[in-house]
Amino acid sequence: MTTATAQGNALTAEDVLKHWQGHRALTRRTIQAFPEDKLFSFSVGGMRPFSQLAWEFIKMAVPIVEGVASGHWEEYAGPKPTNKAELLAVWDRQTREINERFPAIPAHRFAEIDKAFGQWEGSGMQTIQYAVDNEIHHRGQGYVYLRALGIEPPHFWER
Amino acid sequence: MTTATAQGNALTAEDVLKHWQGHRALTRRTIQAFPEDKLFSFSVGGMRPFSQLAWEFIKMAVPIVEGVASGHWEEYAGPKPTNKAELLAVWDRQTREINERFPAIPAHRFAEIDKAFGQWEGSGMQTIQYAVDNEIHHRGQGYVYLRALGIEPPHFWER
Repeated sequence: MTTATAQGNALTAEDVLKHWQGHRALTRRTIQAFPEDKLFSFSVGGMRPFSQLAWEFIKMAVPIVEGVASGHWEEYAGPKPTNKAELLAVWDRQTREINERFPAIPAHRFAEIDKAFGQWEGSGMQTIQYAVDNEIHHRGQGYVYLRALGIEPPHFWER
Repeated sequence: MTTATAQGNALTAEDVLKHWQGHRALTRRTIQAFPEDKLFSFSVGGMRPFSQLAWEFIKMAVPIVEGVASGHWEEYAGPKPTNKAELLAVWDRQTREINERFPAIPAHRFAEIDKAFGQWEGSGMQTIQYAVDNEIHHRGQGYVYLRALGIEPPHFWER
């Protein structure tokens, strides 16, 4: 029997990009589902409002793609969005930038160990995966905020 | 420049197993963090208690590994845990079963399209990924429950 081993190719770079952008599209719908004021103010249990969580995703997304691609780690330099329209505009710009830049990641950089932003050691793939997992994790928290507000969140299985 | 394409091998089967078990270890610590009664009763915004979410993970985990490995899709047959000790015991048994069965998934089954449980069409890898993403998503909700109870959740970055 053929078994999947370290040689087994379970997921390609193209799959990883498609999976991430599917989640990013869902996060965009989650941002949209919040009333403007609640997006920037509402939370449960003393946690951060969803706009703050989305801002965390933005600070990780393109800088991580650039860092994994080039080995240069630079903090996100843009201004912090102050309303929903600005937040969605930055989101959409990053969607295009990720689509442009991700295919330029040299294949060896997915496995190569690096220190993301000079702090977090891991392979390029682990760093990208962390960004995706972190987005899923905090978006799940946004779903609780929406439910607590009496708002139906977008379907998790639609990407 | 070498670019990552459909040929680029971003993630191996071994990586996928390790990543999932890292998340499962974190989910186990999340279950443990709940006081026994709150685990089975507490929620926010009319959502399911965390024991119910953990039960959903259990019904997906080993049955999905078996289904992807063999092409046979069978519902989880064990009894539903009624207290924290039973829930953790089932969790730990599945941890061992996943470690045993995952390496037996034939390599071609990760890419092959199948209908999980006769209902959800996707590649083996997509089905496994859905289970992991679903666990991260709902565990994030458990973090809000813990915060609302005044309990510090486990560190997300520790796997």
